[in-house]
Amino acid sequence: MNNLGIVKRNITRAERAAVDKLARYGVATVHEALGRAGLMKPCMRPIYPGAALCGTAVTVLLQPGDNWMLHVAAEQIQPGDVVVAACTADNSDGFFGDLLATSFKARGAVGLVIDGGCRDVAELERMGFPVFSRAISAKGTIKATLGSVNVPVVCAGAAVNPGDVVIADADGVVVVPAAYAQQVADAAEARENLEGEKRAKLASGVLGLDMYNMRGPLEKAGLKYID
Amino acid sequence: MNNLGIVKRNITRAERAAVDKLARYGVATVHEALGRAGLMKPCMRPIYPGAALCGTAVTVLLQPGDNWMLHVAAEQIQPGDVVVAACTADNSDGFFGDLLATSFKARGAVGLVIDGGCRDVAELERMGFPVFSRAISAKGTIKATLGSVNVPVVCAGAAVNPGDVVIADADGVVVVPAAYAQQVADAAEARENLEGEKRAKLASGVLGLDMYNMRGPLEKAGLKYID
Amino acid sequence: MNNLGIVKRNITRAERAAVDKLARYGVATVHEALGRAGLMKPCMRPIYPGAALCGTAVTVLLQPGDNWMLHVAAEQIQPGDVVVAACTADNSDGFFGDLLATSFKARGAVGLVIDGGCRDVAELERMGFPVFSRAISAKGTIKATLGSVNVPVVCAGAAVNPGDVVIADADGVVVVPAAYAQQVADAAEARENLEGEKRAKLASGVLGLDMYNMRGPLEKAGLKYID
Amino acid sequence: MNNLGIVKRNITRAERAAVDKLARYGVATVHEALGRAGLMKPCMRPIYPGAALCGTAVTVLLQPGDNWMLHVAAEQIQPGDVVVAACTADNSDGFFGDLLATSFKARGAVGLVIDGGCRDVAELERMGFPVFSRAISAKGTIKATLGSVNVPVVCAGAAVNPGDVVIADADGVVVVPAAYAQQVADAAEARENLEGEKRAKLASGVLGLDMYNMRGPLEKAGLKYID
Amino acid sequence: MNNLGIVKRNITRAERAAVDKLARYGVATVHEALGRAGLMKPCMRPIYPGAALCGTAVTVLLQPGDNWMLHVAAEQIQPGDVVVAACTADNSDGFFGDLLATSFKARGAVGLVIDGGCRDVAELERMGFPVFSRAISAKGTIKATLGSVNVPVVCAGAAVNPGDVVIADADGVVVVPAAYAQQVADAAEARENLEGEKRAKLASGVLGLDMYNMRGPLEKAGLKYID
Amino acid sequence: MNNLGIVKRNITRAERAAVDKLARYGVATVHEALGRAGLMKPCMRPIYPGAALCGTAVTVLLQPGDNWMLHVAAEQIQPGDVVVAACTADNSDGFFGDLLATSFKARGAVGLVIDGGCRDVAELERMGFPVFSRAISAKGTIKATLGSVNVPVVCAGAAVNPGDVVIADADGVVVVPAAYAQQVADAAEARENLEGEKRAKLASGVLGLDMYNMRGPLEKAGLKYID
Repeated sequence: MNNLGIVKRNITRAERAAVDKLARYGVATVHEALGRAGLMKPCMRPIYPGAALCGTAVTVLLQPGDNWMLHVAAEQIQPGDVVVAACTADNSDGFFGDLLATSFKARGAVGLVIDGGCRDVAELERMGFPVFSRAISAKGTIKATLGSVNVPVVCAGAAVNPGDVVIADADGVVVVPAAYAQQVADAAEARENLEGEKRAKLASGVLGLDMYNMRGPLEKAGLKYID
Repeated sequence: MNNLGIVKRNITRAERAAVDKLARYGVATVHEALGRAGLMKPCMRPIYPGAALCGTAVTVLLQPGDNWMLHVAAEQIQPGDVVVAACTADNSDGFFGDLLATSFKARGAVGLVIDGGCRDVAELERMGFPVFSRAISAKGTIKATLGSVNVPVVCAGAAVNPGDVVIADADGVVVVPAAYAQQVADAAEARENLEGEKRAKLASGVLGLDMYNMRGPLEKAGLKYID
Repeated sequence: MNNLGIVKRNITRAERAAVDKLARYGVATVHEALGRAGLMKPCMRPIYPGAALCGTAVTVLLQPGDNWMLHVAAEQIQPGDVVVAACTADNSDGFFGDLLATSFKARGAVGLVIDGGCRDVAELERMGFPVFSRAISAKGTIKATLGSVNVPVVCAGAAVNPGDVVIADADGVVVVPAAYAQQVADAAEARENLEGEKRAKLASGVLGLDMYNMRGPLEKAGLKYID
Repeated sequence: MNNLGIVKRNITRAERAAVDKLARYGVATVHEALGRAGLMKPCMRPIYPGAALCGTAVTVLLQPGDNWMLHVAAEQIQPGDVVVAACTADNSDGFFGDLLATSFKARGAVGLVIDGGCRDVAELERMGFPVFSRAISAKGTIKATLGSVNVPVVCAGAAVNPGDVVIADADGVVVVPAAYAQQVADAAEARENLEGEKRAKLASGVLGLDMYNMRGPLEKAGLKYID
Repeated sequence: MNNLGIVKRNITRAERAAVDKLARYGVATVHEALGRAGLMKPCMRPIYPGAALCGTAVTVLLQPGDNWMLHVAAEQIQPGDVVVAACTADNSDGFFGDLLATSFKARGAVGLVIDGGCRDVAELERMGFPVFSRAISAKGTIKATLGSVNVPVVCAGAAVNPGDVVIADADGVVVVPAAYAQQVADAAEARENLEGEKRAKLASGVLGLDMYNMRGPLEKAGLKYID
Repeated sequence: MNNLGIVKRNITRAERAAVDKLARYGVATVHEALGRAGLMKPCMRPIYPGAALCGTAVTVLLQPGDNWMLHVAAEQIQPGDVVVAACTADNSDGFFGDLLATSFKARGAVGLVIDGGCRDVAELERMGFPVFSRAISAKGTIKATLGSVNVPVVCAGAAVNPGDVVIADADGVVVVPAAYAQQVADAAEARENLEGEKRAKLASGVLGLDMYNMRGPLEKAGLKYID
């Protein structure tokens, strides 16, 4: 019953090939390919311009003001992982900084998504370690209370299971369930292919009204043009 | 009575000369020249550093989670227009992305101001298409419900009529009624001319206290200096 | 009893040597060195990337929508000062812009921290005048009501006394009481020295779990590893 | 051009009969009868349980921290009016208390809608003077800066013209343009009549799915039932 | 992969006996009995004082501005159920009012928890139909887009599966996984029994410091008493 | 330098007579009598209608998610005290519930003001123990980290020293420095006496415009009446 005080060591990560393919597409495209699902709330923002990441989730459940579990999580990181940290309460403390980033990077992590605060952001930008967080805060944390690692969490409104694919860029953060990673990657590819053609038409001056055949439905819905 | 389901085709845009003149001044200056009025709320931010725009408003009234009317609006765009999109409810969905931007640009639009969310922001920056929005979100929208185009709207707290001049830069977004565009542009010019002189004095060490003759009024108001 | 309508001329600034030493360390480090205290709320953000400052506080208490006291404060600025402006109510108006910045700079100010709004941010970036504020807004203010200068204030949740050291960077804003400036600077130095060593170990793959001897305490707290 | 410093004395109020009829219906019903328009943002709440009002708008444009114009507005109140106060900036100061309420009541006002703060709320409840505001705050205000009375305003996201009908209850605040008051009142009545019948059917166990014939459209939209 | 457009008819509800037992305890007690988990965010508030509910979840995934799925959900309600509605975007529209409440009540529902807005709150209080929501808003919604019924949802930060027990009172909303309902009910009972004894001691003047043996740990942690 | 881990036992409380006199006046009146100072932010609200308190402050500095120091504070309470709890970070956890209230009450406390969350609010209302908080939340807290008792704190934007008078009612929370308690109480009395007379005049139909002699200043400021 109790979800606290647990570290799950063996998790099933999404297939590497699917993760690598998903990394080619942006968050907006993947979110559409997933059936308009899996997005975190828009309060999750990159800590520096251009930050982006794609990897498999090592999940963490934090307590407010306490980053002990991030140290525990470090040991569970495998190359290509993204640490996804939720918190049992809204808290913007600076749970994460350049020392933890150094450790995570040494373990092969490709970034962090945290429903909390982050600090040392100038140094993290110099390191090229991407973080998406709800806040930037120099506020320090303690190491006193147990949370968990690799349990299912809700992070910024999205359900995340360990091993899921997490993709983040300037548009936000999206989570793809591990089991659907390949299918979603393929759908994203198909979607992107279609977009090129649409873009060319629109650039040439064709209207979406015509390209998408919207005039009939709009008239039927009762749209009236007046002068 | 009902303001929904309407597209007004003929609108009176502010004079081009006045718009071009207003484009020379910043939002703060224009807002002052307008008698400290016309500002949208400060939640409206550029989606990339350096974004700025000045043009005549094509207004849109959106429904939450639905961007159908942006496609309808595209057809009403003339070169030099800015699309100004309000929504019937607070909603941060990503109503606008690079495909619509391609279409708007092809029609001659110089930017978008939207009281909602925007996506594909990295691509929009590459395109140089300026957007001011209350949020960045990858969340997709549908095309199912009628709103309106070129009706008066309230966008981020400011009343906007089709044809008004909209100016946006790093300081925010301001709306100038079409009928006052030339008058405000002239007032902005006058104001800017005065500022250069003031700036030089202040840079030389003259205090605002003396330059603005504030010492008397402050004393009269009861200001006390203590050691 | 009444804290309004007062300008204190003689204040005790922190020792210059201590201020200069504190300027070498980041906000996160100084906040830790101070015993995890003194931080302003994370809503205080730099108005442009890379903005940073360190100086002695000239405090200002503003009224909502009124920047009169910033002009009064200008006269009290000495080289190396940071103006720290609180407001008697939450208000995001643009109290400060490039003219006041020109004046402050001419007096030797090294920046501004304001629990309110700031405007002319593009120009301020060009001037290299760092400002940390809770908002960016073009909204103009008036000059009609007395506040105070160099009284104790609460700014963005932190108590600030005139003469205190204020340090701000991408991680936020921290206030060091003047009396502790040297002591905190020394503690920051000690802390920074330790961090280099830790960073090297973590970069080599040593885990925080081992470096900080956390395994025992975690086990005692009841952490369970499962497969 | 300048909308500040003006008091308009003669305004055209909605017809009394229409106002009285609108007073019989709730805000949700009137908003629907108006074509789903005219609502203020949901941050506008009654200051005590059961507060409700319906009357013709005397509009006020306030400056942050300044309630001078509420005194000016008092003189323009006629029996049956509601004062609707907007502010040039987000500000939660306590612009209004029991003294002003005593004056407004003596003039025949039936309530206040204010995009700002209100104080003396216990006394206002005892007086039975309904107020809808975005905040409750004891913070005092000054009387130093001009705003306007009976100019068009944007209050909590809704455009309000002097003379419009304003209805407020536990569900929020809605504004009906004076010219449409009778038409909207009739539509509200028609709507309410229909609702009684629907309510009876639903209470007897009939499903909305059947009463509104939704099963076909849902199937067509692709809804799938699984076990 | 796609979680939209689905209605699951057969769900496994928590055992009635466990639900009835959980109904005896408050949200704070149940949350503690569950290991300090399962809470929705504190923005979820009762729409009237004294509202409280306990039942098994019928889950709904809504689209912003669209309440079609609440009609679909009505048919899936069994006596003792609570409808738990999440939304794919932050949206405070009034998705639910007295007509839907009449229908839900006729089906045996004991209340609603909705991460969105609610209207007709005065009438809902008269009906005694408890609702917990993030907002009160008269804003109407449409019926145009598919969501789902009885799929796993994230509602106000908590993961909810169909059939889970949902308890709500003045302190908030907590979700107990169906499988643990009996166990948590027993733990809540045990906890409550202990509390009576503690309450008596504390009321007699015994300090928590002594009752919980905190003096030693506090001293060890370094607490210093000064005069 | 370090403000954590300290309990100050001997504090100078405001004179009882002054506290008792202040208890007769509302928060709005006291705030005015204090020169429009001392208010906490309006997010601080009573947890039940009618809650009100006036007493001398025992201050507490909490860590996020941790209520250990409230137990330490209990021992420092003397009859007539109000516990005023600040937190080192924004945190809405339920730090306080009916057990602690029982203990505080047994010690003679007359209420709690907490810049955090509170739970068991229905029970606290039954007990008649007034609490003013920024949130209501069932979220439990731990007892692991030191804060302090009876140190100066910033609570919801107001500086509070141990022994200060704290008054709270439906309008908010105000803090009166102990040294000024009698003076402010006298000023509040004087102010209240004046208000009765003003109220009578306004009730009889006299306008504030005339009673306060505002017509001249308004004309001088440029106010224009138009028809």
